[in-house]
Amino acid sequence: MPLDQNSKRDFKVIGKRVLRPDGIDKVTGKAMYGADMTAPGMLVGRILRSPHAHARIVSIDTSAAEALKGVKAIVINADLANPEDEFFADIRDNCLAREKVLYDGHAVAAVAAVDKATAKSALRLIKVKYEVLPHVTDVDEAMKADAPVVQEGRADESAPAGSSQNVTSHFEFGHGDLDAGFAKADKIIERSFKTAATHQGYIEPHACLASLGSDGRGELWCCTQGQYNVRTICSEVCGIEASQLRVTASEIGGGFGGKTTCFIEPVALALSRKSGKPVKLVMTREEVFRATGPTVSSSTDVKIGMTSNGRITAAQAKLRYQGGAFPCGTVEFGAQAAFAAYDLEAVQTLGWNVMTNRPKEAAYRAPGAPMAIFAVESVVDELCQELGLDPLETRLKNAARKGTLSSYGPTFNDIGLVATLEAAKAHPHYTAPLGENQGRGLSCGFWFNFGGNTCVSLNINPDGTVGVVEGNPDIGGSRASISMMAAEELGIPYEKVRTVITDTNSLGFNDVTDGSRVTFAVGLATIKAARAAIDNMCERVANIWGIDRDAVEWVDGAAQPAGPNAGSHPPMSLAEIAAVADQTGGPIAGHHEVNADGAGVSFGVHLCDTEVDPETGATKILRYTVFQDAGRAVHPDYVEGQMQGGSVQGIGWALNEEYIYGDDGRLQNAGFLDYRVPVASDLPPIETVILEIPNPGHPYGVRGVGETSIVPPLAAIANAVSRAAGVRMTELPISPPKLLKAMSERG
Amino acid sequence: MPLDQNSKRDFKVIGKRVLRPDGIDKVTGKAMYGADMTAPGMLVGRILRSPHAHARIVSIDTSAAEALKGVKAIVINADLANPEDEFFADIRDNCLAREKVLYDGHAVAAVAAVDKATAKSALRLIKVKYEVLPHVTDVDEAMKADAPVVQEGRADESAPAGSSQNVTSHFEFGHGDLDAGFAKADKIIERSFKTAATHQGYIEPHACLASLGSDGRGELWCCTQGQYNVRTICSEVCGIEASQLRVTASEIGGGFGGKTTCFIEPVALALSRKSGKPVKLVMTREEVFRATGPTVSSSTDVKIGMTSNGRITAAQAKLRYQGGAFPCGTVEFGAQAAFAAYDLEAVQTLGWNVMTNRPKEAAYRAPGAPMAIFAVESVVDELCQELGLDPLETRLKNAARKGTLSSYGPTFNDIGLVATLEAAKAHPHYTAPLGENQGRGLSCGFWFNFGGNTCVSLNINPDGTVGVVEGNPDIGGSRASISMMAAEELGIPYEKVRTVITDTNSLGFNDVTDGSRVTFAVGLATIKAARAAIDNMCERVANIWGIDRDAVEWVDGAAQPAGPNAGSHPPMSLAEIAAVADQTGGPIAGHHEVNADGAGVSFGVHLCDTEVDPETGATKILRYTVFQDAGRAVHPDYVEGQMQGGSVQGIGWALNEEYIYGDDGRLQNAGFLDYRVPVASDLPPIETVILEIPNPGHPYGVRGVGETSIVPPLAAIANAVSRAAGVRMTELPISPPKLLKAMSERG
Repeated sequence: MPLDQNSKRDFKVIGKRVLRPDGIDKVTGKAMYGADMTAPGMLVGRILRSPHAHARIVSIDTSAAEALKGVKAIVINADLANPEDEFFADIRDNCLAREKVLYDGHAVAAVAAVDKATAKSALRLIKVKYEVLPHVTDVDEAMKADAPVVQEGRADESAPAGSSQNVTSHFEFGHGDLDAGFAKADKIIERSFKTAATHQGYIEPHACLASLGSDGRGELWCCTQGQYNVRTICSEVCGIEASQLRVTASEIGGGFGGKTTCFIEPVALALSRKSGKPVKLVMTREEVFRATGPTVSSSTDVKIGMTSNGRITAAQAKLRYQGGAFPCGTVEFGAQAAFAAYDLEAVQTLGWNVMTNRPKEAAYRAPGAPMAIFAVESVVDELCQELGLDPLETRLKNAARKGTLSSYGPTFNDIGLVATLEAAKAHPHYTAPLGENQGRGLSCGFWFNFGGNTCVSLNINPDGTVGVVEGNPDIGGSRASISMMAAEELGIPYEKVRTVITDTNSLGFNDVTDGSRVTFAVGLATIKAARAAIDNMCERVANIWGIDRDAVEWVDGAAQPAGPNAGSHPPMSLAEIAAVADQTGGPIAGHHEVNADGAGVSFGVHLCDTEVDPETGATKILRYTVFQDAGRAVHPDYVEGQMQGGSVQGIGWALNEEYIYGDDGRLQNAGFLDYRVPVASDLPPIETVILEIPNPGHPYGVRGVGETSIVPPLAAIANAVSRAAGVRMTELPISPPKLLKAMSERG
Repeated sequence: MPLDQNSKRDFKVIGKRVLRPDGIDKVTGKAMYGADMTAPGMLVGRILRSPHAHARIVSIDTSAAEALKGVKAIVINADLANPEDEFFADIRDNCLAREKVLYDGHAVAAVAAVDKATAKSALRLIKVKYEVLPHVTDVDEAMKADAPVVQEGRADESAPAGSSQNVTSHFEFGHGDLDAGFAKADKIIERSFKTAATHQGYIEPHACLASLGSDGRGELWCCTQGQYNVRTICSEVCGIEASQLRVTASEIGGGFGGKTTCFIEPVALALSRKSGKPVKLVMTREEVFRATGPTVSSSTDVKIGMTSNGRITAAQAKLRYQGGAFPCGTVEFGAQAAFAAYDLEAVQTLGWNVMTNRPKEAAYRAPGAPMAIFAVESVVDELCQELGLDPLETRLKNAARKGTLSSYGPTFNDIGLVATLEAAKAHPHYTAPLGENQGRGLSCGFWFNFGGNTCVSLNINPDGTVGVVEGNPDIGGSRASISMMAAEELGIPYEKVRTVITDTNSLGFNDVTDGSRVTFAVGLATIKAARAAIDNMCERVANIWGIDRDAVEWVDGAAQPAGPNAGSHPPMSLAEIAAVADQTGGPIAGHHEVNADGAGVSFGVHLCDTEVDPETGATKILRYTVFQDAGRAVHPDYVEGQMQGGSVQGIGWALNEEYIYGDDGRLQNAGFLDYRVPVASDLPPIETVILEIPNPGHPYGVRGVGETSIVPPLAAIANAVSRAAGVRMTELPISPPKLLKAMSERG
């Protein structure tokens, strides 16, 4: 797609820090979240969960629970449908276990009752007989030949020789002659790394209100990143047609990828169908931890060769990701992203997805990339240390740029890595002095960004205000950005536009809000829809004036005579055109449907200063600066917010957050008291520097910005800590006991 | 618009009695009506109403109410905005009285409190000081020069000499030389008629849930016939921009025109804005009667001249309608409709709208027409009696037909009156024997039908099901009809389509659901949207096959090669095309926006047999048959339902229903016990005969069918009763005491 002239123009709305449209509703408590919807005659749903990490379900006796007054329906796996596609069958069996429970917290049965107390009592009356089986929760253990098999018959043929049936898929990327490359190196470092599973930590637990009739016609209100995806999943898992299920996304209290699939919605629908009543199902925080989708935990080997002047000669990574009890695919992204920041002659990444007795992973912000890049950037840092090289200069020397054959296949177009590295180099942070026990870490980060299926309608209201209709939940300010792009294109003030996120039956299909796709793809479709509306308005005005359509142009929010007709009529503003729409054919609208491609990749560079406490092993982040290419920063506040938010989550991964499983395979820290996310007092101000290298695939040059920022923090912090502590830290999180132990072993 | 070839084709879905989509939800109680929506932190609103028919508001003291614990907001007229347009200012002043209360039940102030009991207590604590003024509730009294003036400064210049300032508008229609026409007559009858005000009697009282922020951004859920109209009114009355107010229409428990305006929504929004909380406001039945919009009451003079062989030579009607305390316009429709069934050389209708101290009228099914046609058809019947003519033959002799210059201006296109009269003539009902105290009445009826602003989007889902999005509440089965038209056009089963009614911000502007416009205009837009989607699909398939777009045609739900390419590829079905949409450009949709014209007028003929009880004055309907031109009966069940429903409401008007005001100007029967609508035991089976004279303005020939059926019953029943009782009844309702009195005066 050629670079649109618009990306070179002076923007009037784009780039301004306009008022966010959801602010007042959110701070005054009026915003309606997943649990805030009710319906007359509504029942309360509750889910019975497995106390075992791995067990065969011998029997489920629901008779006593059914006999309890106030219990209106009980459902188990058999109450769901039989989708042909294994992908949907897995979601079904994750929503309600089939023959085995596969992890601690796996749902077994669900109850709908007249109130919460009755529902809870009913759960206690359901008798499940289990035959407990051996379990495995660690990725390396799960790959061993003699490991307990989580699910039979799901093994990948290309699993490494001697590995268990838990290896479900394999990916390989790269190019060039690895052996020749390593032969050219002056220094080769090979290391292994581990990262823990982390949870997205969204404030709002999953919640929904479902109503499904015996005729297969249903309504679903839920907290999700993608109402269309919920519709697809629920249609398959409940055996109903897509058009019959109207799904409305509530306001969302965080998602970060974790709300791109379904855990409770098909269960609530099945309960509603069976009871004939609307059913509300709301997860507790403990359920969220035990039975939604955290990120993978990983085990990675990285080997990089470098010349003494800092040129990488060859690079290899082997990634092993456990994605819980069902086959997952995240390692593919990790294997693709691992070396994306580098222009390499010889590179290879190998990745294996592995099943364990843990909850099935869900996407988490740049899924699969942070742990891969943590390992790669740690080794690059160590090579720089060993060879006495400047880590920034070294990265600049090897940086991918336009024309680079990427490590995962495509050749890069305009990308912002070099500009971002140079911005970091020029920033005072990079040369600020450090004190005792302090270290500075650096890391590059990368994310692909997606486009995808997108529909937008834009309606000109009779009073000259404008409504934009989109189908992607606003998880990072997209309503503001979309309104801004509509206003920019139409030439009217931002305040005249309201963007709403509508239900599945009010707009065509939209892919889920993920892959940092929304500002790019929905923005693109909005601009195209606005152009269609402008064309329609110009045509009407041409008719009014009795001149050719081509003789009317749109300038500053108004139609005006162009070319030889210039000045023949006074301009007619959007509001004036809207006011007479009923006399010129009816309502004015623009629509655009597209499977968008051209989402530009995005790079970031993070600089981090830490101080380690040699007595406690505690790490303090002293200073943190993010440099990132946003393509075009539509609303800088939100872009900065994404850069800061991703960094903070990455800090959590690096220093504190982890799923802790006991020997019994049960999760030991299913709550925010024991699973510690960074709080305000843990954090320095996160400084941000936005670079704008326009994406040629978008009319205004927009790239996704939401995910790249979580990729660099792991390595940036680990590198800073390793330098501060004088010992290379290869396992995350770098919790105080772990760091204390490493420092004491260093001596 | 030329007759579309499709109207001649064999329909596969149109004309079938398919399952209604809202049936299960309605019978199981899952359908969400106006009062069924809730929001967290919601307050309860209540309205204080005037106990006087007419009074000046000296003062409103809300201090004691405000001090009551749990009261969160009190609003009066001053809390609303100042719209420039008098139309909106009147709605504002009807929602909350300004300087005067103008009728019994007029809203004065409103409270939002934490619960109903607190809200009711607060109402009692509001002290309103009134200066009671003289009042008038009868239309003829209100026109007298010395009548109390309801509102100053609203008089029409063209009011009859010597009439009061309460006459607010005047209309005149007709053509030809009236004096010459009457001179040619062998018989002239001139009579005066009166009809009472009646209420639409919808089961569901007005109800809404409003949330409006201090930033003017709001959400409104309400029971309405037109969410866009609610948006427009509330925007004006509350002083906010249209795009900022998202209005969602609930399921509707009846409307019949009475839910085409606002009584409580702006008040709820104002309470929400002031309290900062969502506010639910639900009317009681008493409030519905006292303070929503019943139909006008009327006083009419009709003069018709006829030759002895039954040709009408001249006709004149003078209509006086009282529309309550604000200027209204309904008499215009009455004056237009009065003689629409006749092909006349000389005709004149004059109409005056008059203010009284009654609630402002709202639309009620064919607004203004039934009372005008009651008077006209009564005089025609009496002429037939006097001249010994067959009433059906006489109407056939004078019937309007294609080419007739109508009494209100336009020349008729294809219309179905003659066919309808002939169907009645051929029906066994017309010649069935009658017994003692029994009489047969006949009446023609007419309604214009409207088109109007309409937007439809049609989306092809990835699974090959189809969603239609429209913006008009379904008051008579339109969701089924629209799905049927989409299915017909696309060539897929009805069950594959779901039509939803969306909110104001998810689709472009739509006129209110009135004027029997929806099946016509939304259907038209749906067919056009389906054709746009078909065109898009054919283009994609042409690309897949590598042939020209023109070489692909759509047959039976599939694209197939046409012309010289026929047979070169197997047909590709809609579902197959949908399944690969993401590889052929993205989601598939069709859209259509139009200000539709070409709604064909509609005629009906009703036959009614009654028996009067000479001892009690009670009237029993023995047999009732409706003949009506539906253009094209998309879903015959619903068409018959409309024909039956209108008849039943008309029976109520004719025999029982009336607003009864005391000398104090207060409504004496504000409840269903004292305001008597027909119940099942009052009614015979209503037989229906559907005629189908295609409307050339619609691709399938559809005409509106919802309103015409309430027009003939008044005269049909009055004529039957007059013939049975041997006395001409000119005042409705013909309640037993009234009939008994007339029969005893007859002797």
